[in-house]
Amino acid sequence: MGAVPVTGRTRVFAVLGDPVAQAKAPALLNAEFARVGADAVLVPVHAPTARFAEVVTGLQAAGNVDGLLVTVPHKLAVCAHADELSATAALVGSANALRREPDGRWFADNFDGIGFVRGLAARGHSVRGLRVALAGAGGAGLAVAAALLADGAERIAVRDPDGARSAALARRLGAVWPGRVTDETAFGPVDLAVNATPLGLRASDPPPFAVADLAPGTLVADLVMEPHETPLLRAAAARGLPIHHGIHMLRCQIGLYARFFSVRRTRKI
Amino acid sequence: MGAVPVTGRTRVFAVLGDPVAQAKAPALLNAEFARVGADAVLVPVHAPTARFAEVVTGLQAAGNVDGLLVTVPHKLAVCAHADELSATAALVGSANALRREPDGRWFADNFDGIGFVRGLAARGHSVRGLRVALAGAGGAGLAVAAALLADGAERIAVRDPDGARSAALARRLGAVWPGRVTDETAFGPVDLAVNATPLGLRASDPPPFAVADLAPGTLVADLVMEPHETPLLRAAAARGLPIHHGIHMLRCQIGLYARFFSVRRTRKI
Repeated sequence: MGAVPVTGRTRVFAVLGDPVAQAKAPALLNAEFARVGADAVLVPVHAPTARFAEVVTGLQAAGNVDGLLVTVPHKLAVCAHADELSATAALVGSANALRREPDGRWFADNFDGIGFVRGLAARGHSVRGLRVALAGAGGAGLAVAAALLADGAERIAVRDPDGARSAALARRLGAVWPGRVTDETAFGPVDLAVNATPLGLRASDPPPFAVADLAPGTLVADLVMEPHETPLLRAAAARGLPIHHGIHMLRCQIGLYARFFSVRRTRKI
Repeated sequence: MGAVPVTGRTRVFAVLGDPVAQAKAPALLNAEFARVGADAVLVPVHAPTARFAEVVTGLQAAGNVDGLLVTVPHKLAVCAHADELSATAALVGSANALRREPDGRWFADNFDGIGFVRGLAARGHSVRGLRVALAGAGGAGLAVAAALLADGAERIAVRDPDGARSAALARRLGAVWPGRVTDETAFGPVDLAVNATPLGLRASDPPPFAVADLAPGTLVADLVMEPHETPLLRAAAARGLPIHHGIHMLRCQIGLYARFFSVRRTRKI
C-alpha cells in the first residue's frame, strides 16, 4: 500500500456521519480524485450528533476545506449550516452535499434522489410513467420520491411505520405534483417497489414490504447497500422479479459529487 | 498516482497552520503511516487565525480525529485547547502536537526543541558542553534553547530584534538553568550558531547574524527549511564553516510524532 499522496497544498473534503465507519464515499470519491488527477482528499469525520454543529462550523472555518458530504443522521441538521439551498434540497428539506462557493458562501444540494433515478437509468430502467410503491418516508424516501416524480413517475404510494411521516411526505410533494402522491395503504398494482427504510441492514429485520403481494415483473429496488444482497432483494429474485441493488445509487452519486465539487486535474505530474 | 487509501474507518490527523500549504508534515507522516501499515491519514487544515478556536474545537469534537499537529502561528494559542501540557510544552508555553488520550482528554507536547537536538545528533553533533548563539526568541527559539540546555549545552546567548522577547526568554529559562542563558549582546566565541528567526524564507531577507564574526569551526544551523540552502547556510559554507540544514529537525520530529500518536499497523492486508 503506497503512501497517501497528500501534501500541504491538497484540498480537503469530508464526509460527516454518526457513525461514519460504514461510509463508502471516501474510497469511491478518492478513486475519482485519483482518476482525474485532482490534488484532493476526502476524509471521514465522525460527527457525534450532540456536537454536530461544532464539527461543521469548524470545518467550514478552515480555508482549505472545499466541500462536505453528509450522511445519516445529519442530512436535515446540515441545512442550517448552508447559506443557500438548491431547489431540491429546499423541497426535500435535507442535503447531503455542501460546497464553498467562490464568494465564500456555502451551497447545499441533495443527490440522493437523482442518484437513485440515475442509477436506475444506468441499468436500463426509465421511471417515466411508472407506478411506484415506496416504503419509507424519511429523508431518503422523500428525496427519492421527489426525484421519481420530477423524472416523470406517474404515481407514488408511500408507506411508513410512522403514518404522520408518510402523510407529511404526500402533502409536501402533492403540493408540487398534485394527484400523483398518496399515503393510502390500498393502492393498485405497481411497476416499481422501492425500499427507502433502513430495514435490511440487519439480518433480523422484517421485510419492508411483502414481496408475495407484488405483480410479476415488478422491479424491486433497495436503497440499503450493506449487505449487497438484502433479504428483500433475495426474496424478490427468488420470486423471479427483476431487482436493483443499493450500490447503483451511490455509484451515480459519486459522479454527481465530482461535478458538484468541480473536481479537475490540479495535481502536478 | 494511485487513489488515496482512505475509507470510512481510517483514523484522521490534521496539521493546522495559517498558511498551511508549505507544511511538509502531510507528505512525511503519511509516508510513515504507509510504512508501518497504519490506517490513518494526516490532512492539512488551513486555520485562519481569527477562526482558529472554531477549527480546533470542531476537530476535537470529531470522534475519529485522534491527533493534531500545529504550526505557525498557532503553537501558543493551541495550548488553551489542551487538557494537559507536557513539562516541555508548559516550560516553553507552546505546543506543536496534541493527541486524544484514551479517556478523551487532549494532551499537548512540543517536539520542536527535541527535534532540533535529535537532528543535530543524527548528523553527529552532540550539544553537550557547547556554547551557543541563538538568533530568535520566538516560540521556536524558546523551544530550541530549552532543549539545548536540557541536553547539556553549556551556555546560550540569545538575540532578537525584539529585546523584550530575548529578555523574557533568558529570564524564563534562566529560572530553570541558572547562569546558562543570557540576552547580552556581547558574548565570547561560540561552537554553534542557530537561526530560529524566519529570516531566510525570502531571498531578500537580511542575514539573522553576521557569519563573518563567527570563529573558524563554528557549526551554523538554520531552522528555516524552505529554501533548503538558505542565504545563511550558503554564506557559512562559503566561509568553510560546517552547516546543518533545517530539514533534519523535521525528519526527527516525524519519528517523534509517530511515537506520540502510537502509530501502528491497523490496515488490513
